[in-house]
Amino acid sequence: MKIGKQSLTFHNVFIGEGAVVVGPKENQGPLSDYFDKAYDDLYCGAKTWEKAEMQLFKDAINISLSKNNLAVCDVDCLISGDLNNQIIIGSYTLRDYELPYLGIFGACSTSVEGLIIGGNMIESGSCSKVLVGTSSHNATSERQFRYPTEYGGQKPQTITSTATAAGILLLTNTKGKLCLSGATIGKVIDAKINDPHDLGRAMAPSAFDTIVTHFNDFNSKPNDYDLIVTGDLSYYGKDMLIKLFDEININIKEHYDDCGLLLYNQEKQNVFAGGSGCGCCAAVTYGYLLSKLRDNTYKKILVVATGALLNPIIVAQKETIPGISHAVIIERIDD
Amino acid sequence: MKIGKQSLTFHNVFIGEGAVVVGPKENQGPLSDYFDKAYDDLYCGAKTWEKAEMQLFKDAINISLSKNNLAVCDVDCLISGDLNNQIIIGSYTLRDYELPYLGIFGACSTSVEGLIIGGNMIESGSCSKVLVGTSSHNATSERQFRYPTEYGGQKPQTITSTATAAGILLLTNTKGKLCLSGATIGKVIDAKINDPHDLGRAMAPSAFDTIVTHFNDFNSKPNDYDLIVTGDLSYYGKDMLIKLFDEININIKEHYDDCGLLLYNQEKQNVFAGGSGCGCCAAVTYGYLLSKLRDNTYKKILVVATGALLNPIIVAQKETIPGISHAVIIERIDD
Repeated sequence: MKIGKQSLTFHNVFIGEGAVVVGPKENQGPLSDYFDKAYDDLYCGAKTWEKAEMQLFKDAINISLSKNNLAVCDVDCLISGDLNNQIIIGSYTLRDYELPYLGIFGACSTSVEGLIIGGNMIESGSCSKVLVGTSSHNATSERQFRYPTEYGGQKPQTITSTATAAGILLLTNTKGKLCLSGATIGKVIDAKINDPHDLGRAMAPSAFDTIVTHFNDFNSKPNDYDLIVTGDLSYYGKDMLIKLFDEININIKEHYDDCGLLLYNQEKQNVFAGGSGCGCCAAVTYGYLLSKLRDNTYKKILVVATGALLNPIIVAQKETIPGISHAVIIERIDD
Repeated sequence: MKIGKQSLTFHNVFIGEGAVVVGPKENQGPLSDYFDKAYDDLYCGAKTWEKAEMQLFKDAINISLSKNNLAVCDVDCLISGDLNNQIIIGSYTLRDYELPYLGIFGACSTSVEGLIIGGNMIESGSCSKVLVGTSSHNATSERQFRYPTEYGGQKPQTITSTATAAGILLLTNTKGKLCLSGATIGKVIDAKINDPHDLGRAMAPSAFDTIVTHFNDFNSKPNDYDLIVTGDLSYYGKDMLIKLFDEININIKEHYDDCGLLLYNQEKQNVFAGGSGCGCCAAVTYGYLLSKLRDNTYKKILVVATGALLNPIIVAQKETIPGISHAVIIERIDD
């Protein structure tokens, strides 16, 4: 149901089991217990980085089907996107599945954009079971957006480290313990930042815009959520977001964290300003946060996935880097 | 409502006015009367090809709003995708609009994928008015997928010519003369073709799969539609599709055409095997075909947008080129 210009509520969208498959660095971080499978090298047994990312994505689909006791034929649709040009990870992986497929792109907001679109496919009655997913891979993204890692270019401290991870989540109309109860669709917000090495601060204003709109549309406040989590703003963007809320006299700090900062151990792992990439928010949300909802640590969370909408050509044309942030409410239904 | 594994029906999704803005070659073709605006050079007054494509897209949004007597604040969401890396056309253009935005990618199937997602946003009650759109530009696509046009590379006869065009269509829950009554979501189909200069034949098997599934799910046959149109299979892919139907004893020929072949005058315009690009199917469908439904030439059509899911990196890695085709039924509601 539509509430406000950007927000909506779901009444029949429930969350099944998710699956998260990660690379070596992510598995050495503090959340390793919440992942379903990990590879100890970035090639994941494949011959190219792109095929390695496809392997992660395929594993995540298969594990998710298995955890939900579903066969491919039980699923109505898969919705996914990734950071590679023309989102080849989803489309090439799906060659091996008899699954209707909808490709999306929202950069690192993809994990939540997929939940919003998938939620609507269920709420409308068009589907009863939808898989939503995304992936990112450190080596495919670095060469896609910056330089090949082999080039060994130096990096500023504001840069984030793309997570090697794939996440898949089942949305279903079968009542379960967790539900997707609401969403706020983001607008494109241009903070006039043009440094592709500081995407956290390029995206923070879009996260601010979406969360403020969300509070207004749902008549809610930070206290109404056990956790508000962005994905992924870096230390710099997180700090900027907190300050933007301070300016309007809203204290978000005590209820707020960022997926890219949760995924790694900042002191021991060299990830610069934090993690990023579509797979980061998916790994933390579909893996760790859903577990925390299921084990009663949390009752209701707001996940705000943030995407930087650049490509290298347009940055070379001296354009700024706009951001977009989509938010969903995930909550536990108590008996 | 879900019918069959891949198909669904809409009961509350109506079609408002569309807007189509094209480049010079498209305006010299047989459908020029059905377009809202045309530029006489490929730069469209902008400094780069990408910004030229953004200009087409922006014009299409503005004209569509005007034709529908809507302001930006009356629209709940815009859904779009394009062929540029990381779909920058939609995301950069949307910086100037206060509009919730969902980015999608389905290559040249985008124009119909957007209608399916937008239809679900309305059917679920989440939105009352959604703009769906896409664009392509000959010069941005050529250098994105093949070579910069300035390179002057020779082309084989099987290649298609990317249309320079942007299309926007309004979906609404306000009852009107035309409705979006059903859809079939495509699967990724790999015909094992790896020639990026023959995308028509790479995609034809996916169009075949979607149309056969559509006939089965809706218990329909070619005669039930005044026109079945693909977008865009080229002369080679169109011929292949007709032959695939011949093999299962279905005569589709009399009711079938292709958007890429309708857009240009093949004898006078040098477009090789026909038109292609996201904007091609959008221009022909949102412009020409909707007019033919409104003026009572057609009562019910099936639009099957076909996408080739390659990127240059994966083709260089010797992979094949899968295709996907999404279908929607558009029909006139008689009083």
